[in-house]
Amino acid sequence: MSRREQKCFNCDSGVARAAPVEAERERRVTETIDRRGLLIGLGGLAAAATACNSSAQPPARKLGYAIVGLGYYATRVIIPQFANCRHSRLAALVSGDPDKARRYAAEYGVPERSLYDYRSFDRIGDDPDVDIVYVVLPNSMHAEYTIRAARAGKHVLCEKPMAVSVAECEAMIAACRAAGRTLMIGYRSHFEPHNLHAMKLAREGAIGRRRYVHAEHGFVAGDPGQWRLKKALAGGGSLMDMGIYSVQAARYLTGEEPVAVTARASTDRSDPRFAEVEDLIAWTLDFPSGAISHGMSSYSSNHNRVRIAGDRGRIDMEPATPYAGHSLRLVRDGGEQRLAPPPGPAVNQFVGQLDHMSESAASGGAPIVAGEEGLQDMRIIEAIYRSAAEGRTVRI
Amino acid sequence: MSRREQKCFNCDSGVARAAPVEAERERRVTETIDRRGLLIGLGGLAAAATACNSSAQPPARKLGYAIVGLGYYATRVIIPQFANCRHSRLAALVSGDPDKARRYAAEYGVPERSLYDYRSFDRIGDDPDVDIVYVVLPNSMHAEYTIRAARAGKHVLCEKPMAVSVAECEAMIAACRAAGRTLMIGYRSHFEPHNLHAMKLAREGAIGRRRYVHAEHGFVAGDPGQWRLKKALAGGGSLMDMGIYSVQAARYLTGEEPVAVTARASTDRSDPRFAEVEDLIAWTLDFPSGAISHGMSSYSSNHNRVRIAGDRGRIDMEPATPYAGHSLRLVRDGGEQRLAPPPGPAVNQFVGQLDHMSESAASGGAPIVAGEEGLQDMRIIEAIYRSAAEGRTVRI
Repeated sequence: MSRREQKCFNCDSGVARAAPVEAERERRVTETIDRRGLLIGLGGLAAAATACNSSAQPPARKLGYAIVGLGYYATRVIIPQFANCRHSRLAALVSGDPDKARRYAAEYGVPERSLYDYRSFDRIGDDPDVDIVYVVLPNSMHAEYTIRAARAGKHVLCEKPMAVSVAECEAMIAACRAAGRTLMIGYRSHFEPHNLHAMKLAREGAIGRRRYVHAEHGFVAGDPGQWRLKKALAGGGSLMDMGIYSVQAARYLTGEEPVAVTARASTDRSDPRFAEVEDLIAWTLDFPSGAISHGMSSYSSNHNRVRIAGDRGRIDMEPATPYAGHSLRLVRDGGEQRLAPPPGPAVNQFVGQLDHMSESAASGGAPIVAGEEGLQDMRIIEAIYRSAAEGRTVRI
Repeated sequence: MSRREQKCFNCDSGVARAAPVEAERERRVTETIDRRGLLIGLGGLAAAATACNSSAQPPARKLGYAIVGLGYYATRVIIPQFANCRHSRLAALVSGDPDKARRYAAEYGVPERSLYDYRSFDRIGDDPDVDIVYVVLPNSMHAEYTIRAARAGKHVLCEKPMAVSVAECEAMIAACRAAGRTLMIGYRSHFEPHNLHAMKLAREGAIGRRRYVHAEHGFVAGDPGQWRLKKALAGGGSLMDMGIYSVQAARYLTGEEPVAVTARASTDRSDPRFAEVEDLIAWTLDFPSGAISHGMSSYSSNHNRVRIAGDRGRIDMEPATPYAGHSLRLVRDGGEQRLAPPPGPAVNQFVGQLDHMSESAASGGAPIVAGEEGLQDMRIIEAIYRSAAEGRTVRI
């Protein structure tokens, strides 16, 4: 199974049941397209239905997560989703702020004995309730806590960006491998039906030969004191936090790895928000097929869109990678069609991600967004920074 | 008047009447925005209403055009528009195909004596019916026929791209200057209300500080035998024909001139359409303010969109530069609004362009898209080609 093929991550009994699930998804996709009568020649989608290659077995019990770092994303986006998980439950909280930890513990029913701080963190190895450590800390702390968790014998789900350097990513992969533990990166778009459907359409020829990807991600950064704007904590600016979605989209929609990058950054250093990290950064990726991608990210304007153009049509997503409310359009044969892909087996991308991690950890199977996926993005990100700094094309 | 400010090109009696026309346009824009209640702080638009700086007087009579080259654009797009012009009329046809010339002459009431071919073209100097020569030939012939027309004592409207090299553009400007004749380039977007309104909004601060422009133009080229795909006739591929709209948009929306360009081309030379010219080409423009533009053009996929993002909002146009059916959206303050700019004084962009040329020729005033505008685009286009060929950033 290539890294670009989707493993059926929520099948109940392996390949035997997964294939019909996948076929049913294909059938619904094809019908969606046929109903509108705008598109022809996509019958191959149904015929191309792929069997689920996963050997993952559903865990016999829900696996316990320790959430490390109690910021907005952890407490308001991720933690509430455990209620919707089939294979995952909240087991422990790790925070440097005991009051905050106790408050969320009370809200989500985590016992006092399962609260850790950053000094006591390594004792998590003795906690049988915790199977998986989910690192939701500022970027510069990802490597340390991933490695400490692996050494404590826990599997690790680590937020994107995986770390702040290629060297850190490699150390994280090595630590998890040495400990025999699963490492996955929090690339939620790989569990989101619109993005999955776009990957599938692109891969299966719905837009012909893939030629050009354009991807924009950004938001207007507010408080200059936030960790995202501190180089020591974030490792970089908009590229680390948002541009990584643009890089990801170019890779998962072309199905290729870039061989060169040429970048430009533009930052007003007199703006107190941008004293340490870049604001606007824009780059070009060259792919072996001849496909080209323009990507950008910004901390001073709002962006969330992705387009891939092929020689038979194009796919537009805007917004492409929100928490909810995705839009997917297929433009072909003179017609434009808004597609509503069938929902995945998980209720949303966050649940899909958590449960896929649990299944991977339980079965020992490689997750679809393993550490190597994060490492590859970090190679590209480092090349983008180098290109922008040196004013030249950088080979990857 | 800077090159980026719009001259009121259809005012009836100069500044005295033009100012109220402009003020009325401003009022309607402001009301359009206020009605939706989404936008605030744009009151300055009305206060900023600019007086018409044109000293052009409407011609006492309709000026006569000779159309040189009877391809699709000339015969199906331009010629029918003379019926809607106030200051312009069709006076002569120039073609290498006498049957075709006679057919269109009959259709549009052009007398036999006003039909020319490429050998008899220079006799047009003796034709008092012809004031303006409109060059709608393949790109490589623009320079020759512009220069011959100027030497014959005629004003010239020349289609974009102005020519196929900077040297040719300079020679065309020099020839028209030496002959004391007006030279204008067929940049129809400068006479199109949505594009004019986008320029105005961007210029007047509606999206704050301008940071990023993305512009895509392309279509799927068919017949490999068409002149657009022959290097000797077209001078280049998708960049010459379509990418020039992306370059233009970056310039007229930022209101700046780029200082450097970095480009990549990607062409399948085994495709018979692309044996001589480029298919996909993508570039980055650096502007002095720090604004960055990504532009692209293609002959293997359909594209027509432009976005400019500022630190207070963005403007989206898709399609941005069609013959008709433009769309303009302003995204700000959490709201998105489709804007319907008030129509210009001309019924459409083609009529606006023809009549502005007539007014400029009659008055001796500089047209808003004079030869220097085409020359500047050609400097950028040459830099894009050089950058793509040499794999390095090229200063402009």
